[in-house]
Amino acid sequence: MEFGIQFFPDVNPDEKPADQYWQESLFLTGLLDELGYTHVRTVEHYFKSYGGYSPNPIVFLSAAAQRTRKARLITGAVLPIFNHPLKLAGEIGMLDAISGGRAEIGFARAFLPHEFARFGRPLDESRARFDEGLNQVKQLLEREDVSSEGKFHSYKNVTSLPRPTQKPRPPFWVAASSSDESFIYAGKNGYGIMIVPRAADQMKKWIASYRQSWREAGHPGQGSVMIAFHMYTSNDREEAYETARPRLDGYFHSLVEATQEWTEGLQSKDYPNHPKMMQFLKSGTFESRIQQGATWIGTPADVREIVTRYDQAVGGLDIASLQVNFSTMPVDAAERSMRLFAREVMPHFQKRASAA
Amino acid sequence: MEFGIQFFPDVNPDEKPADQYWQESLFLTGLLDELGYTHVRTVEHYFKSYGGYSPNPIVFLSAAAQRTRKARLITGAVLPIFNHPLKLAGEIGMLDAISGGRAEIGFARAFLPHEFARFGRPLDESRARFDEGLNQVKQLLEREDVSSEGKFHSYKNVTSLPRPTQKPRPPFWVAASSSDESFIYAGKNGYGIMIVPRAADQMKKWIASYRQSWREAGHPGQGSVMIAFHMYTSNDREEAYETARPRLDGYFHSLVEATQEWTEGLQSKDYPNHPKMMQFLKSGTFESRIQQGATWIGTPADVREIVTRYDQAVGGLDIASLQVNFSTMPVDAAERSMRLFAREVMPHFQKRASAA
Repeated sequence: MEFGIQFFPDVNPDEKPADQYWQESLFLTGLLDELGYTHVRTVEHYFKSYGGYSPNPIVFLSAAAQRTRKARLITGAVLPIFNHPLKLAGEIGMLDAISGGRAEIGFARAFLPHEFARFGRPLDESRARFDEGLNQVKQLLEREDVSSEGKFHSYKNVTSLPRPTQKPRPPFWVAASSSDESFIYAGKNGYGIMIVPRAADQMKKWIASYRQSWREAGHPGQGSVMIAFHMYTSNDREEAYETARPRLDGYFHSLVEATQEWTEGLQSKDYPNHPKMMQFLKSGTFESRIQQGATWIGTPADVREIVTRYDQAVGGLDIASLQVNFSTMPVDAAERSMRLFAREVMPHFQKRASAA
Repeated sequence: MEFGIQFFPDVNPDEKPADQYWQESLFLTGLLDELGYTHVRTVEHYFKSYGGYSPNPIVFLSAAAQRTRKARLITGAVLPIFNHPLKLAGEIGMLDAISGGRAEIGFARAFLPHEFARFGRPLDESRARFDEGLNQVKQLLEREDVSSEGKFHSYKNVTSLPRPTQKPRPPFWVAASSSDESFIYAGKNGYGIMIVPRAADQMKKWIASYRQSWREAGHPGQGSVMIAFHMYTSNDREEAYETARPRLDGYFHSLVEATQEWTEGLQSKDYPNHPKMMQFLKSGTFESRIQQGATWIGTPADVREIVTRYDQAVGGLDIASLQVNFSTMPVDAAERSMRLFAREVMPHFQKRASAA
């Protein structure tokens, strides 16, 4: 099992201004190599506290590459629907060059109705734009002198620069949330999958179907599954709960605020399961989330037990991507928790390989 | 007078791969604070060796911000025509946050016909897209809850995040090349100007008209003029010429290759002077460029004399932005030259203030 960290800003300027948020995140990134965390990841979102400090994850990851010599730099994720493929392919080439070949690129369809509205993109174009965008970026990275006639973007005789440092290109990931097809698509195409925790039996089914389609397509190994968790550990359970509870509430508050359209009757053919999924994510409590293993909070012994249980329940956890500074978490608390986790939890879980 | 450095990649993957180019550039960026250089700048270009390693200058500057604590991070420039204003405003906010408020944003209209063709943008939309894009980004940075109905991009009720660290926003610059209006526009709006060297009498006229429109608009001071120069200095003049000559040729070779349409009969109402300007840039020789002061190459004494002459000829040079690793220049030669310039040339020119 491998452990990395994920920065998912979910504060507004009154709670923590962006310069403070990003500089604290860079400081925490500077601990990765020493402590054995293997990746740093961030999101693409806009306009609201839920993710909005990170409209281009590649801009942060490029800075982060200067604070770690070993960790992989992972977009979690970029959104083809809001990006021009010529631009995105070029930025990926730059990040791969600047980091000496440590970039990994997660793609997602986006799911916040307010972002679609502000960019003037119909929700029902989501899947089509994702498919076209991902495939165009893939081609632009893998080949020279590419032409493409798309529904949304077309171009002729393009050699994207910089050519990727990793050949033929950085590994790809796909964010899957709630549809069987996403897991099958990722496995078939040899991409890793990125997920947020859901009920363990559902996760187990999805991961199994991902691995099956991976193998059936003839890819070596069994693919890569990355799951995101909120993590806060302290030797004092009461302190852990007191510190993490309001911040976890803060995170879900910003999620609910950013996704309210889904729970107020919005429907889209491209998002058949989102109203139900958002209700599910809203309905959890601090205790139920810990109980389900979706949130790793407590003493190191508590967290070891949660991880063991979750690993077994989902049929094998490859890579955990830990949110360590969610909401208004003070940076020194996040640092202490990262150090304690590295010392008391990490060694209990054997390392497995990554790569997608 | 202030001195900074500019990274303008002009190599292809066979000459120097992008990971080597950018990592050498980051190493050179790490010298700035020690040596007294006050900014680092890079370009936005695509698809060819002339600038093509840098499709998004903000991605490099974000990494560069980790190698210098004092230098300003300047886009030179971003191109509104190839960027969505919601995306660009967000990236500027991120860079300003990550650098602790050291971002400065130069905007340009773009001028390479092959880029317009590959992005599917007509050359004759250049000015309209520049004007709309710059003003939308400006609004998005300065204000919250912005709506805009543009010819090219429209949106409603947007608060761009991150809010800029500098208030109301990072300083703006405009790249001006060959039209009187660009200089007047920049002065009137309180933006700095970025230029590449032309005949000194022409430069003097333009700079004077910029400063006049700056003052007439009631802005304090006299504005900021940044001029780009190729620089290589060595105690041995012969070594300086031998090292710099093939690399300067390499730079102009990549320029000519990227702009050939302009010298082969292309016309655009938005670029009335470009065919002539490109002929001019093509026609120079190594010796004539040094003679004109457009290129700072020679011993420290030679360079001091060139700078003194140019400063007087154009009526006062504010900020020089030095290309130190052009073409295949070895990084150790660039380092030696930067150190020698800092020791033997810089102190002879008094510091003046920046800020636009």
